[in-house]
Amino acid sequence: MIRVGIIGYGNLGRGVECAIKQNDDMQLKAVFTRRAPETVSILTQDAKVYSVDDVEKMKDEIDVMIICGGSATDLPVQTPKYASMFHVVDSFDTHKKIPEHFAAVDAAAKASGHIAMISVGWDPGMFSLNRLYANAILPNGVDYTFWGKGVSQGHSDAIRRVKGVKNGKQYTIPVESALEQVRAGKNPTLTTREKHTRECFVVAEEGADLAKIEEEIKTMPNYFDEYDTTVHFISEEEMKKNHSDIPHGGFVIRSGKTGWEEENTHIIEYRLKLDSNPEFTSSVLVAYARAAYRMSQEGQSGCKTVFDVAPAYLSPKSGEELRKTML
Amino acid sequence: MIRVGIIGYGNLGRGVECAIKQNDDMQLKAVFTRRAPETVSILTQDAKVYSVDDVEKMKDEIDVMIICGGSATDLPVQTPKYASMFHVVDSFDTHKKIPEHFAAVDAAAKASGHIAMISVGWDPGMFSLNRLYANAILPNGVDYTFWGKGVSQGHSDAIRRVKGVKNGKQYTIPVESALEQVRAGKNPTLTTREKHTRECFVVAEEGADLAKIEEEIKTMPNYFDEYDTTVHFISEEEMKKNHSDIPHGGFVIRSGKTGWEEENTHIIEYRLKLDSNPEFTSSVLVAYARAAYRMSQEGQSGCKTVFDVAPAYLSPKSGEELRKTML
Repeated sequence: MIRVGIIGYGNLGRGVECAIKQNDDMQLKAVFTRRAPETVSILTQDAKVYSVDDVEKMKDEIDVMIICGGSATDLPVQTPKYASMFHVVDSFDTHKKIPEHFAAVDAAAKASGHIAMISVGWDPGMFSLNRLYANAILPNGVDYTFWGKGVSQGHSDAIRRVKGVKNGKQYTIPVESALEQVRAGKNPTLTTREKHTRECFVVAEEGADLAKIEEEIKTMPNYFDEYDTTVHFISEEEMKKNHSDIPHGGFVIRSGKTGWEEENTHIIEYRLKLDSNPEFTSSVLVAYARAAYRMSQEGQSGCKTVFDVAPAYLSPKSGEELRKTML
Repeated sequence: MIRVGIIGYGNLGRGVECAIKQNDDMQLKAVFTRRAPETVSILTQDAKVYSVDDVEKMKDEIDVMIICGGSATDLPVQTPKYASMFHVVDSFDTHKKIPEHFAAVDAAAKASGHIAMISVGWDPGMFSLNRLYANAILPNGVDYTFWGKGVSQGHSDAIRRVKGVKNGKQYTIPVESALEQVRAGKNPTLTTREKHTRECFVVAEEGADLAKIEEEIKTMPNYFDEYDTTVHFISEEEMKKNHSDIPHGGFVIRSGKTGWEEENTHIIEYRLKLDSNPEFTSSVLVAYARAAYRMSQEGQSGCKTVFDVAPAYLSPKSGEELRKTML
């Protein structure tokens, strides 16, 4: 049994809890929260809830700690800190700051002899893996990543900051005709506008100027101005009923050429269609927690990403079983 | 520079030669053939052609040997044999015999301190990897593999053995409606007939009984009797013009549930669409040759499959570059 701890009990932490339940070789030992522990109720009967201040006391009872904080301010502090006490896994997803995060976490993990897996999830994570595999196989090619259909938290937050908006949700939608061109091996050069559209559902405050809200959203720099955006005004009830889920997904496609004269075209496509973005991310985190534990058992330490993990470490099956059933 | 040798110069060997040309850190040193070397002309100017009997003389000039023999009779003998002299990579694809092949190759590679990568390609290979990743992430789910549209060599051979058939080519085609059900998360139970159809193009001998040929193909046990099969009679010219390529591909899909009550569905789909089956397989072989070389430099030895190779080994980029550009 691999004994797992969770730091942070939001959507991601709850997702990790659910994922652990599906893995027979893993056990949730404790959840650590910044809230008063008595106010947090979890789903797993045998697990405990503690204050995050007490995390160090559990050093001998937890094999891998999954850190479920946010990438903006939590993880840059938490992951190096806890990597000095535990084998850890995080889902740090600020792509540009990964090298910096890696360096800080690697120093802490190496000094204390722990394994720390960072940037685990689907992008970064499974999408990154598929970019790497496809690039290694087809060095002569073009990469495409499309996201959606799915909820963008950042864009939904941006809508909610517009004056007169009570609630808002934004869906990122890949443009089907662009996808088809890519799949057909046409290697199109696509502008931002040609790749994705944005669909917004907005609950306005009473008496708000709807035309003004719509205009403000559609012209918002960095978020919407470069996209074809649709705005729908709906009621709070409709928002609750139809837009409470957090679906997401997307496509990683590489189109490459082989042959002495580059006469043959190959398309590698990886697609995710997810009902729940945080639960899928959590499921990836849990598989990599298993890998972290196993790699640590072999005496490895330091910061690792999905690129550094041999796939066999992710599965509860033995090498022999895997070769027999999955190869 | 990684110095590569090729044993066997058929479609696969030629594909490996083309793939090496696309990788700046690799160099084709020599091709080894069972034919008289002077009768084999290759594309790479600086590489040599030798008899396969002279392979041992090149021990110090080749870092990785890519063995391009067939799985039925060549590789079971060749891979253990050459693993005792070189780091090797093969594309052994008889799924049922992989454990046996692994054991023989592992013994030879360990005894001599070499790395031997077996069953590299797309199925086994990239498809296997995608089965493993998807199963590790979504333990509660169902796997689907569809092949095609593509040429099945085995089925084409079977057609050509029918009396009155001069030439034949068979395409395996996935049933679109079955794919759609799977993608929709419906987890259908699909019979053989419901997953794939088979389309045959046949050049008949003059005066042959076409109805009899068609009947014999359609009812052929193991090959066609469980499928909806179409037979088209065409001329030799049409065969050459329209059916000389060797396209293939397929889909690996896992549909899984997450959530405390398994309320959310996720679909992971990996798709290949290949103009040339042997050239794509070759491209995978070459990427794993790089990994074999690197793992050997770290002192590793023994038989490995795609499951045992951390993705970073496949890329010519450093860990730092990969984290910066692909994660």
